[in-house]
Amino acid sequence: MADPALFEFLHTEMVAELWAQDPDPGPGGQKTSLLVLEGMGFRVGQALGERLPRETLTFREELDILKFLCKDLWVAVFHKQMDSLRTNHQGTYVLQDNSFPLLVRMASGLQYLEEAPKFLAFTCGLLRGTLSTLGVKSLVTASVAALPAWPRITEDWGPSWHDLSHTCH
Amino acid sequence: MADPALFEFLHTEMVAELWAQDPDPGPGGQKTSLLVLEGMGFRVGQALGERLPRETLTFREELDILKFLCKDLWVAVFHKQMDSLRTNHQGTYVLQDNSFPLLVRMASGLQYLEEAPKFLAFTCGLLRGTLSTLGVKSLVTASVAALPAWPRITEDWGPSWHDLSHTCH
Repeated sequence: MADPALFEFLHTEMVAELWAQDPDPGPGGQKTSLLVLEGMGFRVGQALGERLPRETLTFREELDILKFLCKDLWVAVFHKQMDSLRTNHQGTYVLQDNSFPLLVRMASGLQYLEEAPKFLAFTCGLLRGTLSTLGVKSLVTASVAALPAWPRITEDWGPSWHDLSHTCH
Repeated sequence: MADPALFEFLHTEMVAELWAQDPDPGPGGQKTSLLVLEGMGFRVGQALGERLPRETLTFREELDILKFLCKDLWVAVFHKQMDSLRTNHQGTYVLQDNSFPLLVRMASGLQYLEEAPKFLAFTCGLLRGTLSTLGVKSLVTASVAALPAWPRITEDWGPSWHDLSHTCH
């Protein structure tokens, strides 16, 4: 049985190492290490997606794919399901994890929010890579209102949201 | 249930990224990324070692610790036990894995041997870090005669080897 903490420990070390090597881009710039982490997540997500049983690759609807991310992928990586899934029915989905494992060990003060993006980039890539293998081209961004956080998948943006939480269980 | 391939995919990406960033040190030099990977492995090994149940932290003999590495640690990380454990009874141990997961996907020609060290550095650190948490200061090196390979733990070196494989089962 694999130790579930192994991935978390390795992810922490990877973030720390890439962040330390990366010079500060100055005001308004983005750290290169965020793009590197997102790219690594993308390729790991692609590889995980290719390991799926064939029958799961014939999803009937986009929503089936999102449900797969919220259940199967999240359990495979984080040992828990996503807490909620919402959509505006225009191609934008919001996946909410109220105890995201890669953030949950951080202190929860607002002053740590600026540290959050480096712990989210890999997972944004992971979702984008898995979606790519499943034939969905996507843009994945993450928002943190309070620690811990939720990844947000955006293909398009709309004002109205329908709660699909029940589909996640 | 965690996907056992997740660690392997992430490790592969990490090695590729650090290796690509690292300039060639020239003849006789060592790539900095090998030291970085070893250091990351060390810290992950320390963290895994700290997660052990307390009763396992009171090993009676050094050999108990080595058996723990061969069984519990290896299963936690690689989902298999080490294939054999030998010692010269002078503080040197040879741990042999005949199908080391981080190398087993490589083509097995001798021409790939020079690529092997970058896939072994993290695991050498992992063993050294776990041993450190268990109170054993060690030097861990890896040798590959044919792919796949075995990590070798060296505290001292002697010419004669005693096969302790049975202690590993």
